[in-house]
Formats: sequence, C-alpha cells, structure tokens
Amino acid sequence: MENDPRRRLVEKIRRGDVAAAARLIRDIDNEAPAARPILKALYAHTGKAHIVGITGSAGVGKSTLTAGLTRIARNSGRSVGVIAVDPTSSRTGGAILGDRIRMRRHADDDAVFIRSLAGRGHGAGLSHAAYGAITVMDAMGKDIVFVESVGAGQDEVEIAHLVQTTVVVLAPNMGDSVQSFKAGIMESADIFVVNKSDLAGADRTAADIRNLLDTASPVSAAWMPVVLCVSALKNETLAPLMQTLDRHRKCRAARAGRLHRRRMFAVLGLLLRHLVWRELEDRIVNEGTCNALVDEICRRETDPYSAAEKLKRRLMS
Amino acid sequence: MENDPRRRLVEKIRRGDVAAAARLIRDIDNEAPAARPILKALYAHTGKAHIVGITGSAGVGKSTLTAGLTRIARNSGRSVGVIAVDPTSSRTGGAILGDRIRMRRHADDDAVFIRSLAGRGHGAGLSHAAYGAITVMDAMGKDIVFVESVGAGQDEVEIAHLVQTTVVVLAPNMGDSVQSFKAGIMESADIFVVNKSDLAGADRTAADIRNLLDTASPVSAAWMPVVLCVSALKNETLAPLMQTLDRHRKCRAARAGRLHRRRMFAVLGLLLRHLVWRELEDRIVNEGTCNALVDEICRRETDPYSAAEKLKRRLMS
Repeated sequence: MENDPRRRLVEKIRRGDVAAAARLIRDIDNEAPAARPILKALYAHTGKAHIVGITGSAGVGKSTLTAGLTRIARNSGRSVGVIAVDPTSSRTGGAILGDRIRMRRHADDDAVFIRSLAGRGHGAGLSHAAYGAITVMDAMGKDIVFVESVGAGQDEVEIAHLVQTTVVVLAPNMGDSVQSFKAGIMESADIFVVNKSDLAGADRTAADIRNLLDTASPVSAAWMPVVLCVSALKNETLAPLMQTLDRHRKCRAARAGRLHRRRMFAVLGLLLRHLVWRELEDRIVNEGTCNALVDEICRRETDPYSAAEKLKRRLMS
Repeated sequence: MENDPRRRLVEKIRRGDVAAAARLIRDIDNEAPAARPILKALYAHTGKAHIVGITGSAGVGKSTLTAGLTRIARNSGRSVGVIAVDPTSSRTGGAILGDRIRMRRHADDDAVFIRSLAGRGHGAGLSHAAYGAITVMDAMGKDIVFVESVGAGQDEVEIAHLVQTTVVVLAPNMGDSVQSFKAGIMESADIFVVNKSDLAGADRTAADIRNLLDTASPVSAAWMPVVLCVSALKNETLAPLMQTLDRHRKCRAARAGRLHRRRMFAVLGLLLRHLVWRELEDRIVNEGTCNALVDEICRRETDPYSAAEKLKRRLMS
C-alpha cells in the first residue's frame, strides 16, 4: 500500500512526465530524503542514455555549445536532457537565469528537458545531485543527456567519473587556460573542443592541447583524445563534434561491461562518501563531545590533529 | 629518545629554518604520515600570525596582488609567508612556475617564505594541506601569511574558514564574475578588491558588488565588508588595502576568543573529514566486499544507493 504512490511516481517518470521529473530533481538537489527510494527504484530502468559531460572554465561558451548540440540532436530526432551543474550562490542566481535565457528556444520542445542544480555545498553534494539527475533523465528515456559543469573544482573531477563521454571546452586567449586544468580533468577528457574558433588564437590553443597530449601517456589504447575547433553558434562546425560523440559511444560499446563496472565503482564511492559526510556533519553539529574537544584545542590542552583522530576512532568501526 | 629528532625539527622550524620548513610542507602536501606528529607539536607555537586569504578567479591578478602586499609588508619590517594553493595538474605545472617568476624579486629576502601546494585531490586534501602549511608558517614566526587560492571550488569555501581575513579579488569586465561566486565565498568576504582599476569598468564592478552587499544581510555587525579599487602594480593603491587588512585584524581582536573557537571548529571538522575520507578510500580499494557490491549493482540485483547504505552501516559505528 505504502509503496503505491512511489510506484506511480516511478511509472510517471518512465513515461517522461516533465512535471514529476522536475519535482524529483528539485528534491534531489535539496537532498530531500523522499527522493532516495524513488532513485533506488529508477536505477533498474537506466542504462540506455548516452551521458555526455561538457566541462570548462566560466566564459568559454559551454551553455551555447550545449544548446547547439541539443539543436543538432533534435534535428536527428533524438530526445535530449540537459543538466547544468551550477555551484554559484543561490542568492545571486545569475548563471541559472542565463542558462534559461540561452536555452529558451527549446522551451516549447517536450523532447528537451533542462534542469539546473545548485548543490548544497559540502561533501560531494553537487556530484551526488548530478548522479541523481542523470538517473532520472536516463530513466525518462532521454537518448542523450548533457551534463554541463565548470571545470575547476573537485566536484567536476567527480562528475567526470559519472559521465560516459567527457568534452572539455576551451576558448582561445584565455591566458593560462590550458595550464589551469584541475588535476584529473585533462586526463579524463575524451574530446577537447576549442570554441569561438573564429577568434584569433584558436589554432594556437588547439596546437597547445595537441602538444600536451603528445607528451602525456594515453589513458586508453582504444580511444585517443580528439581536438576539435568549433563555433558553437554555427551548426556546420558542430556536426563533426556530434559525429565524434557518436563515435566515442560506439567505441565504448565494445568495452561496455568493463566501463560500466568502473563507472559504478565511482558512483558507489561517491554515494558512500556523501552518506558518511552527511552523518559526520550531523554528528559534529549535534555531539557535545565535539564542543568539548574544540574547547580543549582552544585551551591548547590538545591539538586539532589529535582531536580529529580521537573523534574518528569514536565514529568509525 | 625516539622523540629527539622530532623535537629538533620543531625547534628548527620555530627558529625559521627555511629548508626544514620547505621539506615539512612538501611532506604535508604529499600527505606523508611523518608530518602529522610534527604538526601536532607545532600547534602549541601558533596563534601569532595574521592569516589572510586572497581568493578570486584565474586571471584577476591574485599573484601580482600578493606580491604587492608582500612588498608593502616588508617595507614596514614585517616577515611574510605566502601559500599558493594551486589545484592544477602537476603534469603541466604552469601556474606554480608562474608564481615563482612573479615572486622572484623576493627570492633573496629571508623574511619572505613562499610555498605552492598542489594537493592530492579527493577529500578536502587541498584545504587539509593549506591548514598544515598555515600552521608551519605561523610557528615559524611569520607576521603575516597570505593564502592565495582560486575561488571556484569547494576547497576554497573550506579555505575561507581557515583564514582570519578573506580578500576576494575581481577584475573589471570579467563578464559574470560578480554572479559567479561560489556559494559561500561572497558571504565569507571581509574585503572585496577590484584589481586592474586602470581598466574601464572597474568602478562599475565595484558598484555591482556594493549593490549586492546592500541587498545581502550583514554577516557580522562588527565588520561591514569593504570594497576597494586597486592596481596591484602601484604601491600607492595598495597602501589603503594593507591599512584595511590591519584594521580588520584589530576589529577581530575584540572578539578573538569566539572567532578562534569558530575557526578551530572548522579546522576540526576539516581534519576529521579528511581522516575519514582517506580511510574510506583505503577500505573501498582494499575491501573485497566493495567489489562484490559493484558486481551486484552491474547485475542489477541492487542499486547504487542501497549498496552505499549497506557499506556505510558496515563502516560506521
């Protein structure tokens, strides 16, 4: 009995109900406990979508690129999900609004479903929410899901493990952009895109990336990272990118079992860390013992490192 | 007996031995277990330095600003520590090299001690290393320690809790820079600096920040965030910034006990999370049970959320 409303919600989402999916993703982003049983039930219905990460610094044109790829996917009849991972303050809300405006042309298209995630800060919260939203869009039957994120912090390295194909976007003349990759992003890129290819310096940036790739040891023998120059506003430059995405997907198919296993290993680690982190936060806030330890540190009767070790022994079996 | 080399190392660092401190900070950054007992012993000798965070996006001129403030502090006879938190791939190493070049003019000055941290990724590794390096420089007797970091990811929000005064740096015409603050950074800023004030748009950027501050509820009644326009290359524009730093330090002094307690609360939480995270990683990698769970997920006999809950119950008491 108690499960009936849950089962109905799962069925609604499988049928692609946009309002139900939007509510669930908002709950996921807010870490509402009610979302967990639904996500558990949805997992059985996932595995069909192509999950594509679009990452890069602010201002390189990720949203425009995602909108362009969405256009091309729709032209070939595919349904699209877009997850904009947006760790900016909810107080200003500028970037979320910006996404909305840029994606407005798809607003009347039922086959395009766009959500932004703000995350709740600490403890892999953002990548946790991203995995939840991916699960929902996959279960909805979307053919391709774009996960757009700013490629700077730890969250983004984690998000790279949740997608199947990682596109790293750069713009020419971003100064230290090639050098400023977060450790792990460079290594996880399947495709590098130099956007704004009509600007001077695009070829130079592409050459810089190719040089870096030449000096790096290849991550996989089955796929060599591809470097493409595009102009996200021009469809004809995006077609080769979409073809490369499809080619990467096919290339993965031959190793699907092993790659899925690796991805689920990352997912399990992420969900575990998130659960543990939340419980630590609860206990740190609630336990009087933590207050007592801070007092001892402030009186210099102990040091923070010894206090943390003591607390850890108490919490973990 | 066993403690003698440790005690000698602690004494060396307290006397300001640069080589010993550099080795220790490298060990901290590499998470070498040998660093822990030294850090525990050094804590008793900390609490004198003014710890100043300098944060902002790539390209706003944080390093130039830090170099300028270092110059001014040295002119007034103060000793300076600089910690450049640099989460870019160690493979390319561009930013670290850039810092070195920009700070070269201080290279022959024994009273300026500069270290870069790369962090080891997961689990608050970077903020953990930053706190360790702060401890070392404080114990060395540095009067002021600048902690320079890119204000984008979760690490930076954590780092904001480790410093006493947070300076958020912006440049004019960075597009969405005011909007793109990571949640928590805006709230933790004591001083906003608009760098490159000779560029058009500096006044506009400063006005944008003041508008945002006007709509936000003040974080502390004792200190209203200050907005300053500077040109990091010109000493005369940096003098008011240094005066504001000193004024913020004095303003903190009246509430020193409470603020120190709050900072130690954040430090304890950070160190605890780091310890737990590392142990989880060890166990995830080593435990056969984790492999078995991933197999169950891949066979769809369970879902990742239920598997993570099972694993958590096993690990935590």
